[in-house]
Amino acid sequence: MLPVVDFRPPFNITRASHIVLHVADLRRSRDFYVKIVGLVVTEETGTHCHLRGLSEACHHSMVLVQASGEATCKRIGFRVYLDEDLDAACKWFKEQGLPAEWVQVPHQGRTLHVEDPFGTKLELCAHMTVCERLFLQVERFTGAHAQRLDHFQIFSPDTWKSCEFYSRLGFRNSEYLAHGDKLLGAFMYRKGTCLDLAIVESEGPKMHHFAYIIPESHLIFTACDLAGNHGYGASVDRGPGRHGPGGMLYVYLLDPDGHRVELCDGHYQTIDTEVEPVRWDAASLSTNVRWGLPATAHWYSHATPFEGASTTRPATMPNPLTLETYIQRQLAAQAG
Amino acid sequence: MLPVVDFRPPFNITRASHIVLHVADLRRSRDFYVKIVGLVVTEETGTHCHLRGLSEACHHSMVLVQASGEATCKRIGFRVYLDEDLDAACKWFKEQGLPAEWVQVPHQGRTLHVEDPFGTKLELCAHMTVCERLFLQVERFTGAHAQRLDHFQIFSPDTWKSCEFYSRLGFRNSEYLAHGDKLLGAFMYRKGTCLDLAIVESEGPKMHHFAYIIPESHLIFTACDLAGNHGYGASVDRGPGRHGPGGMLYVYLLDPDGHRVELCDGHYQTIDTEVEPVRWDAASLSTNVRWGLPATAHWYSHATPFEGASTTRPATMPNPLTLETYIQRQLAAQAG
Amino acid sequence: MLPVVDFRPPFNITRASHIVLHVADLRRSRDFYVKIVGLVVTEETGTHCHLRGLSEACHHSMVLVQASGEATCKRIGFRVYLDEDLDAACKWFKEQGLPAEWVQVPHQGRTLHVEDPFGTKLELCAHMTVCERLFLQVERFTGAHAQRLDHFQIFSPDTWKSCEFYSRLGFRNSEYLAHGDKLLGAFMYRKGTCLDLAIVESEGPKMHHFAYIIPESHLIFTACDLAGNHGYGASVDRGPGRHGPGGMLYVYLLDPDGHRVELCDGHYQTIDTEVEPVRWDAASLSTNVRWGLPATAHWYSHATPFEGASTTRPATMPNPLTLETYIQRQLAAQAG
Amino acid sequence: MLPVVDFRPPFNITRASHIVLHVADLRRSRDFYVKIVGLVVTEETGTHCHLRGLSEACHHSMVLVQASGEATCKRIGFRVYLDEDLDAACKWFKEQGLPAEWVQVPHQGRTLHVEDPFGTKLELCAHMTVCERLFLQVERFTGAHAQRLDHFQIFSPDTWKSCEFYSRLGFRNSEYLAHGDKLLGAFMYRKGTCLDLAIVESEGPKMHHFAYIIPESHLIFTACDLAGNHGYGASVDRGPGRHGPGGMLYVYLLDPDGHRVELCDGHYQTIDTEVEPVRWDAASLSTNVRWGLPATAHWYSHATPFEGASTTRPATMPNPLTLETYIQRQLAAQAG
Repeated sequence: MLPVVDFRPPFNITRASHIVLHVADLRRSRDFYVKIVGLVVTEETGTHCHLRGLSEACHHSMVLVQASGEATCKRIGFRVYLDEDLDAACKWFKEQGLPAEWVQVPHQGRTLHVEDPFGTKLELCAHMTVCERLFLQVERFTGAHAQRLDHFQIFSPDTWKSCEFYSRLGFRNSEYLAHGDKLLGAFMYRKGTCLDLAIVESEGPKMHHFAYIIPESHLIFTACDLAGNHGYGASVDRGPGRHGPGGMLYVYLLDPDGHRVELCDGHYQTIDTEVEPVRWDAASLSTNVRWGLPATAHWYSHATPFEGASTTRPATMPNPLTLETYIQRQLAAQAG
Repeated sequence: MLPVVDFRPPFNITRASHIVLHVADLRRSRDFYVKIVGLVVTEETGTHCHLRGLSEACHHSMVLVQASGEATCKRIGFRVYLDEDLDAACKWFKEQGLPAEWVQVPHQGRTLHVEDPFGTKLELCAHMTVCERLFLQVERFTGAHAQRLDHFQIFSPDTWKSCEFYSRLGFRNSEYLAHGDKLLGAFMYRKGTCLDLAIVESEGPKMHHFAYIIPESHLIFTACDLAGNHGYGASVDRGPGRHGPGGMLYVYLLDPDGHRVELCDGHYQTIDTEVEPVRWDAASLSTNVRWGLPATAHWYSHATPFEGASTTRPATMPNPLTLETYIQRQLAAQAG
Repeated sequence: MLPVVDFRPPFNITRASHIVLHVADLRRSRDFYVKIVGLVVTEETGTHCHLRGLSEACHHSMVLVQASGEATCKRIGFRVYLDEDLDAACKWFKEQGLPAEWVQVPHQGRTLHVEDPFGTKLELCAHMTVCERLFLQVERFTGAHAQRLDHFQIFSPDTWKSCEFYSRLGFRNSEYLAHGDKLLGAFMYRKGTCLDLAIVESEGPKMHHFAYIIPESHLIFTACDLAGNHGYGASVDRGPGRHGPGGMLYVYLLDPDGHRVELCDGHYQTIDTEVEPVRWDAASLSTNVRWGLPATAHWYSHATPFEGASTTRPATMPNPLTLETYIQRQLAAQAG
Repeated sequence: MLPVVDFRPPFNITRASHIVLHVADLRRSRDFYVKIVGLVVTEETGTHCHLRGLSEACHHSMVLVQASGEATCKRIGFRVYLDEDLDAACKWFKEQGLPAEWVQVPHQGRTLHVEDPFGTKLELCAHMTVCERLFLQVERFTGAHAQRLDHFQIFSPDTWKSCEFYSRLGFRNSEYLAHGDKLLGAFMYRKGTCLDLAIVESEGPKMHHFAYIIPESHLIFTACDLAGNHGYGASVDRGPGRHGPGGMLYVYLLDPDGHRVELCDGHYQTIDTEVEPVRWDAASLSTNVRWGLPATAHWYSHATPFEGASTTRPATMPNPLTLETYIQRQLAAQAG
């Protein structure tokens, strides 16, 4: 039921690279990501803060931008392998009748702004300014020791169509979620792990969350404890828990603007082409919880809009079993 | 507001020792404690299963007894230091007009059955058959590598009176929970850590939970994963989370009979007499959650009865903020 | 000083895949890899045992073969991306005047045996029989929970020439070790981490070690403890320690035939082409130890021969500071 | 073969409490203990620095004193339970003809200086100024997150006599090391774990090491990495490794003055009187290494003198198998 993957795609996207987020208070958000998540500030000005994970050699995997208005997501960024892949990408997007525009972005090589068919704002580049990897500078560690940006999860009004689009760019599904023959979630990768881009059916395009890898599971607790100590106890939005698809341990935190960041441990290696994607059969997303309570309605429905993007609702909105519904059913059963 | 502690008590209780539980299906319960919690079977018959933690030299810290009727808690056991402490205990309980009876218990030295003023069934002994500590026999590890029984939590209809009783036996509070001048929770110890016996205000006497220590925090996740894999995913009753009082990481599991076992990491050392108990001010227990959602009503109210003990309700039943109430308030706020 | 890398190589090797080892006692070796390393047996016959790591979907990353004679390494295997890459590889090796032979290997797709210019025995395939990933089947975990084969380290009589050869196949250096303008160690990868193939200057070709990834650092200790408990305490050949190049935590074990297996935690992500390889300046390898003692002479010099391969000594044998030399110098200094 | 223990000792020593060390450079030593070990500075002056572990409520478990001369150990401190125990102690020591002197020590209650029969400098007090436990203040964690002082190891010229002395004070052996009927090591406790005081046969009295507990095993590696990063890579004196007696994971570091600090994970609970001490039969200490190499001669012989104490050699000096001897034997075997 999954779309055909192009194993020799028109250009070579290698990995999820960076996210650019509007924030209402640059300093407060920077502190959140440094003190709780454990990112390192590469560079900071009055309006921009560039951060990276401890094991990243790139200049930034997160750019916080002081917002004057709504705290949107400006772009999610992907790397391409070589500079020539950018030219191929530009040509390809134009051929598809999709937006493609060259832009200048500090600390990045030639950069291309493109959009997928639902208006998801993408940014492609082949290079960034190189920085020192800090993964052994233990004395500089803070927060949950986030190592590197891993993946994005976006909302799409038509998961199959989005999945089909990214399959043409060589993205493959490690796992997927379906109800009957309806695709509800596509967990897609380029870089040889489970995920670079997860696509989930809901009103979109929106950015549901982005994820950083932590090196060991105990740091999930460190993140929660630090969230609590820094006044973000109520921002532990979901978890700690164990994913169905992908199988990672996770916790989701809401940053000061409500952008959702996931911390998860590493996942398995993919790469080999003979391995079939794992199917999760689901009447609703929540049936894939291995233990613990279902996620809240907020977790299922809240996501960050992309700057300037208009959204579309799916033909049928998914109806996952939320914590709220679960509790109400239990109370009704007890009353009944 | 806490009762006076007798620092030279009439006899020397040294630690929480063991729990004796009725179970509906001996084999199923044994498997639960071996495969998920990680206890080791010392000895098993058709009607009894004796288990111990990996670092315990005692013959048993848990005795499962095949039940014909209700799955009650038969006894919670404490050790006294020397055999002569048993005689002093027998004398003291009789002087108080409380039950005290010598019994024969396999693999235990002279054993005394006593009750606190609310009828909590206690068992005291000075010695057990000695077994090999297995904490380095890595090849025999299963489950969450539970190391040793740590503490019990009981319900009392009058926490202050119960606390006063155990204070006379030399138990000290590491921390306590109060609302105004009403004591709601007493976290008491003998053995130099935070806890041997927690007493919480509710209809009692009942056994709310018992706790085993796990050596490292990642084993909290192992316990949850194994619970899920063995069909007990819905039995993860609370957590993983971080305690207010005591500050341990925890997860609570329900065994096949609904007996509640906590797995928690170690706690701080107490011993020194100049350190004051930590007070937690609480309108309700749930306000002490550092991060994550409140516990369910089930967690607050469900507990195992003691065999043959009649229970009493507190003058005022505590009214903690449950997950159910929390969710309903949130839904009402959104609707309103 | 490093050779030029072909970023569009003639065929696409994707990763280190598997190792085929002769062993003197199949059952004993299988037990070693299952009980200490934590591999899972996929299939076993009287003469062959196929094993895989917990997160591997491939049929085998290790094949143990009952030896009648010397316990050599038969082959180290790499995956290519698509079947058509095998044809391209066959053509390319023949053009270079290097051995290339199609062979039939159970549970592998079309398989090609080739050799590098120094006679290192390589095996290429695009596909294997797919097996279930077991990384969440906690109840089946044994040993140190090895997740997946990560890399090989081989001896080459001319590291630069070997590095140049693999660079033409698209292998890139994450890090390298040099003394002046002499390349002593090349740490090369294809799969987006630090390593698929490490090449170190010494009499070769030989297989110095292969490495499996463990998911968390505490499992380094688990491996050592299990080695001790199973009678292999003296087989802890080096470590636990922290690498200079790559920065991983490691321990090296010798299996019953003296084949050396490394267990290490994960490494950083590479992929991006603008990042320069890290240079380690070294009079000898041992100067890169961050803490702890130098490795023994045995660790530096002992390696497994490839089946039927004749070896060549380097023009100049490296002279690393061994533990033996270090201790003798210290004793001499004290005596002097 | 072990001395008789007095289970109702003349006064109640409860635990190892603190160590007072001369250091050549107060600031450098403080940095070592804060940045690598992870202690917290409670108070610092130009001549004294008081530190405590993260979970300690006491004012100090370590006092660094700026030395003008040799970097000796001034005292090792023990707690007694109640103030009245101090009076009983004073009386008892005087009855034995041993030094006993009341002194004033800042941040301590009434304090008694005493000596054991070999001149080991002891300091007893019942109380200290109480400080906040910081074990959940994750944002303040540094180094290896040392939680609390655990034990001291001293050299004695006659282990049996020392053991007999402390047995009269209620210290019990959890484990011991003997060769035939010669006691070489006594691992003694008061507080319900394995150790408060280890006594090893060598020229003494000297302070061989003191130990802090780390909460999880991965912090052993953190300590090593930080030692390396801060220029103390060569100060990793032994380990990481696994103890024979006690079974803890350990690493030993040398501080800037050569005082030896051990970091180890927690140990098993003792308390119960029916459990016999574990005997380790040993021709030499080093035979009890479970895996890894023997300790160096420096580890066996180097220890910190007590201020002003004259030392005595044992009748027979122990002759453990050192790393140096082990290597020389191996080289001789290869040469022969």
